[in-house]
Amino acid sequence: MAFDSVQTPAGKADKVLGGSVNYFSVAASFFAPVQILGVVGEDFPKEHLSWLAARKIDTSGVEVVAGQTFHWVGSYNDNLNEAKTLSTALNVFEKFDPRLSEKHRNAEFIFLANIDPVLQTSVLDQAKTHRLVAADSMNFWITGKPKELKETLKRVDILSINETEAFMLSGEKNLHKAIAAIRAMGPSVIVVKRGEYGAMLFTPRSIFLAPAFPVDRVVDPTGAGDSFAGAFMGFLAEQNADREMAKNDPAGFDKILRRAVLAGCTMASFTVQDFSLHRLMRLEAKELVERQNALLGMIAV
Amino acid sequence: MAFDSVQTPAGKADKVLGGSVNYFSVAASFFAPVQILGVVGEDFPKEHLSWLAARKIDTSGVEVVAGQTFHWVGSYNDNLNEAKTLSTALNVFEKFDPRLSEKHRNAEFIFLANIDPVLQTSVLDQAKTHRLVAADSMNFWITGKPKELKETLKRVDILSINETEAFMLSGEKNLHKAIAAIRAMGPSVIVVKRGEYGAMLFTPRSIFLAPAFPVDRVVDPTGAGDSFAGAFMGFLAEQNADREMAKNDPAGFDKILRRAVLAGCTMASFTVQDFSLHRLMRLEAKELVERQNALLGMIAV
Repeated sequence: MAFDSVQTPAGKADKVLGGSVNYFSVAASFFAPVQILGVVGEDFPKEHLSWLAARKIDTSGVEVVAGQTFHWVGSYNDNLNEAKTLSTALNVFEKFDPRLSEKHRNAEFIFLANIDPVLQTSVLDQAKTHRLVAADSMNFWITGKPKELKETLKRVDILSINETEAFMLSGEKNLHKAIAAIRAMGPSVIVVKRGEYGAMLFTPRSIFLAPAFPVDRVVDPTGAGDSFAGAFMGFLAEQNADREMAKNDPAGFDKILRRAVLAGCTMASFTVQDFSLHRLMRLEAKELVERQNALLGMIAV
Repeated sequence: MAFDSVQTPAGKADKVLGGSVNYFSVAASFFAPVQILGVVGEDFPKEHLSWLAARKIDTSGVEVVAGQTFHWVGSYNDNLNEAKTLSTALNVFEKFDPRLSEKHRNAEFIFLANIDPVLQTSVLDQAKTHRLVAADSMNFWITGKPKELKETLKRVDILSINETEAFMLSGEKNLHKAIAAIRAMGPSVIVVKRGEYGAMLFTPRSIFLAPAFPVDRVVDPTGAGDSFAGAFMGFLAEQNADREMAKNDPAGFDKILRRAVLAGCTMASFTVQDFSLHRLMRLEAKELVERQNALLGMIAV
């Protein structure tokens, strides 16, 4: 949960709603019920938490503590695939230590957003049975806490990561070798995010190349990766595509993974069409289906 | 027809065979008979022309004149999508004025490689009946001879161009508007090349997004666009996909165009795996089919 202040070639937005869990949960809620964990300061708008709850997103795991909400200030130049961080005020996030309620412990599909791998591992330690675990990470943790990250990855089924980070994490310069090296760390499925060029899905059996949906104009790429992950994970949960299925029906699992990646690309394409969560918050299920079908039409041969 | 001296992160190659017509014709010859027009100096290896002829590429349109062959010197840094030109010695190419023989005039599928639009128009003036015309161009002509280029484009069915050039040519910043503007200039079909990210195909009826085949290691991107165009055009010729078909069976035409784009992506992926034409010259039809099928598998849902 965060406030973002962001400048892009299309304009700027000051202290607007942001944060992985926000983008992720709204995106995922189109497909499956969602429970979120996070922390906000007393300055965070309660109306937004109510709005999430009205979408049947369980916000009981969002702690409200004394202090200010995490605040990211960043900008994008013409290369919209790369954010430049101008400042990061961790604020209440600095002492965030996710505690799972009994209900959270029974979550079946878990997504570990991009935080300290020590906290990611702590979430998995508290979780009871889970059917599928996906995780995100970034250069900051790859270089800052490589050992801890590798501990987390041992317990992760699916890793979503961008291309540069895949090279950084694996120490390889060749993508195929990088994927093999990451797979050896734990995740059998790796989703490589490529910004405006879409995503690549690597399973032990095949590669899938998904394009981004070509939007007229990218206003703000912030949150694209998180809403991709939300729709991806929501779709997998909706389809009951879990570790068990990966074992017993790998071809069926791969097929659902491909659809999940396309759902992610479609969702992300809405996110980037406005600042903050603005576009996602007014997105209708019908629009999502329409664009998903349009994207399918653009890759059919 | 050219000599290229090129440096890439993978190494360097000095005065090796290059030139659009070389890449194009070898790629196209996997699908259809090819006739080429071009000019070389006395320094150009005759064995290479014989090698082309052995592939049933009609080289009677290649003039050998006194002087040196065109020589391009360039380099790529880690961004392999962008060549940096260090020097260009036009040499015999400076006075190139393509003259079509009676046989050439009857060519049915014409590809106008990236040269002065005045020469492109001159080729079309000399050609008699033709069933489909495709053309390539670049920033140099877009800014240097915009009027002449627009004259050529009026008579072109398919334009292949990269993303930056599409914006430059149209004066638009939004891809969809850029495509509409280019279509108004003449070409009803526009192929936007995106380097390692593949290509986008815009027809009046639909958009197709084709990924590049993910190769282990890009050695030298030179010629990727030309071999893409060669396979693309060769495939259209093989399938008899012409202007007439576009009119009478637009859906069927679009379907073949999509396959042609994938053929182009597949071919280009071989080209970049070695310097010069080295990989293409040892490419076997069986390998091409195998990789084409692999690429199809990577986009299937």
